[in-house]
Amino acid sequence: MKEKIEELWGEVREVSLGSNGSVERLESPPTPLEFLRNFINPNKPCIISNSINHWPALSSWTNPSYLTQTLSSSTVSLHLTPTGAADSITSLPSSSSLCFASAHVERVPFPDALRLIKSSDPSKCVAYAQQQNDCFRSEYSSLAGDCDSHIGWATEAFGSEPEAVNLWIGNRYSNTSFHKDHYENLYAVVTGEKRFLLFPPTDVHRFYIRHYPAATYKHSLETGEFDLELDKPTRYVPWCSVDPFPSPENLEDEISKFPLYFNGPPPFECTVKAGEILYLPSMWFHHVRQSGDDGELTIAVNYWYDMQFDIKYAYFNFLQSIDYQSPADPTMPEKLCEEIDSGLDSDDDTR
Amino acid sequence: MKEKIEELWGEVREVSLGSNGSVERLESPPTPLEFLRNFINPNKPCIISNSINHWPALSSWTNPSYLTQTLSSSTVSLHLTPTGAADSITSLPSSSSLCFASAHVERVPFPDALRLIKSSDPSKCVAYAQQQNDCFRSEYSSLAGDCDSHIGWATEAFGSEPEAVNLWIGNRYSNTSFHKDHYENLYAVVTGEKRFLLFPPTDVHRFYIRHYPAATYKHSLETGEFDLELDKPTRYVPWCSVDPFPSPENLEDEISKFPLYFNGPPPFECTVKAGEILYLPSMWFHHVRQSGDDGELTIAVNYWYDMQFDIKYAYFNFLQSIDYQSPADPTMPEKLCEEIDSGLDSDDDTR
Repeated sequence: MKEKIEELWGEVREVSLGSNGSVERLESPPTPLEFLRNFINPNKPCIISNSINHWPALSSWTNPSYLTQTLSSSTVSLHLTPTGAADSITSLPSSSSLCFASAHVERVPFPDALRLIKSSDPSKCVAYAQQQNDCFRSEYSSLAGDCDSHIGWATEAFGSEPEAVNLWIGNRYSNTSFHKDHYENLYAVVTGEKRFLLFPPTDVHRFYIRHYPAATYKHSLETGEFDLELDKPTRYVPWCSVDPFPSPENLEDEISKFPLYFNGPPPFECTVKAGEILYLPSMWFHHVRQSGDDGELTIAVNYWYDMQFDIKYAYFNFLQSIDYQSPADPTMPEKLCEEIDSGLDSDDDTR
Repeated sequence: MKEKIEELWGEVREVSLGSNGSVERLESPPTPLEFLRNFINPNKPCIISNSINHWPALSSWTNPSYLTQTLSSSTVSLHLTPTGAADSITSLPSSSSLCFASAHVERVPFPDALRLIKSSDPSKCVAYAQQQNDCFRSEYSSLAGDCDSHIGWATEAFGSEPEAVNLWIGNRYSNTSFHKDHYENLYAVVTGEKRFLLFPPTDVHRFYIRHYPAATYKHSLETGEFDLELDKPTRYVPWCSVDPFPSPENLEDEISKFPLYFNGPPPFECTVKAGEILYLPSMWFHHVRQSGDDGELTIAVNYWYDMQFDIKYAYFNFLQSIDYQSPADPTMPEKLCEEIDSGLDSDDDTR
């Protein structure tokens, strides 16, 4: 079976996505028909320039005092972690076992949130405004006039307004680990730049999705210390196991644990700059980082549109249900089989 | 594996196609955006009314003398078989072995062709004008003014003009056996009615695609006799093995040979009447019959548009490459395994 699955990785690149890992760039927004035909239908990412040049946000949000003044009376949800890796696989301090760690979420006045983000230190505390519950239209509603409420050509193509619009304010210490979303995503970068690693849904086996016990950071504002505690009652979250950027001393170990990731086709890698939009198709695996110097902010607005649950979705679920390598295969170490088996039956999406 | 494949049959119906086997009907043509979003993208058939009401063909082609006059000096390709089953799996007369039998193709003046079609007798000779090489724009070019050269809203959705336009003139004795095409198909019925059995690409294993030696009928106009001879040099055609309408005395035998077809989900079954268009999505398996009394003609024009070779196509090839039931499975009779293995590696499309 493994040869057939690996052929699939190659074929989707050969017939549709391209094999060099680059993401197509459009110098102007597509018509709704072009967007549907050339990107949504084939489930293919692209980066669109010159679609949001008219947003006041592109200039006004580069000035932090504009943001603190406009949001002076807003309270926002700030995500705090000790290292910048929220929603990611981490060792539990009390043992060597792994868990799915969620950030400590603190509701704070926006000016305090912005100060905490800018002073993030990955050896102490990293703050990331990344509440994904339609926060741009609730917590950040004072900024509504600075951006379009939806992306016109995309709304026309999808046939409906966005289901959620989220604001993201972070810096180079904030990372988002590999996962996929059950949404079509238009990701508009307003200041700074975001760096994406993208993989098509056909590559699902390369992420070693396993069920991890959920845990949440608790942060003490007084001591500045973090505790990581398992959620009670215990619940398990299916999540991608792969960290694409392990530290040099762990690299060899990670490659041997996750060979399908490290030895397979390269990611579709792209940097999305201020003023650009990434179309991140539904069900694509993605890892996100921010660039920039200390204290420099990356601000983005993303629009989640409902995805179509159609033949592609049915094919994906079928593929995910298949063991990459049959447990009966004598070349497969028994332990690895068990691990793969455990994570493949359900979804890696917590939403 | 068989449980997983059968779950896929169910899931694509559950999430997208519906489970009652009915084909969605549109009372007016969709906009190009609606057609792309709701049918092409999810690879879902539909029947569209009131899109070709303005075609002169709808009235003029009901009059055979109009056709014979307009095409009086045209020579057309007529497909002759002894039973009406062209491009289908048939026993070789010299042995009990099966072959893929193509029709005898005779170039005849159109008035003769029409007479032969009308006088078809399934115990002697059935004639079917079904040349699929863009014949409407070549052999039948005198009829060009009676229909649109393309379907406007579809052309806009697909982003290009049709690759081929074919004319079909047959009667109730002409059948087309199960197969799929690597084209998006808009099938407009002008007179009579056509009856389709449709299955999504996910059901590929239910058709027992196997490689059959190609054979061609030779018809003697003098004796009226048919010979069926293997093509030389020998070539093999992958084709669906299932006849959905076996004679009552063969039914039990056919069910036992092709249980996945007869015991699986029902077909999407529809009758397309004069003035209606069927959107037959790329890669869907289809079987076609004509209704009507003796001598009554069914005339249709179909538009083949290029399909997108994208993630759906890659998923299909992956699915097709998988054995329904692993040969190692002890419940699987060895002989059946071999047969299934032999037909799954390539395409059932001869074009």
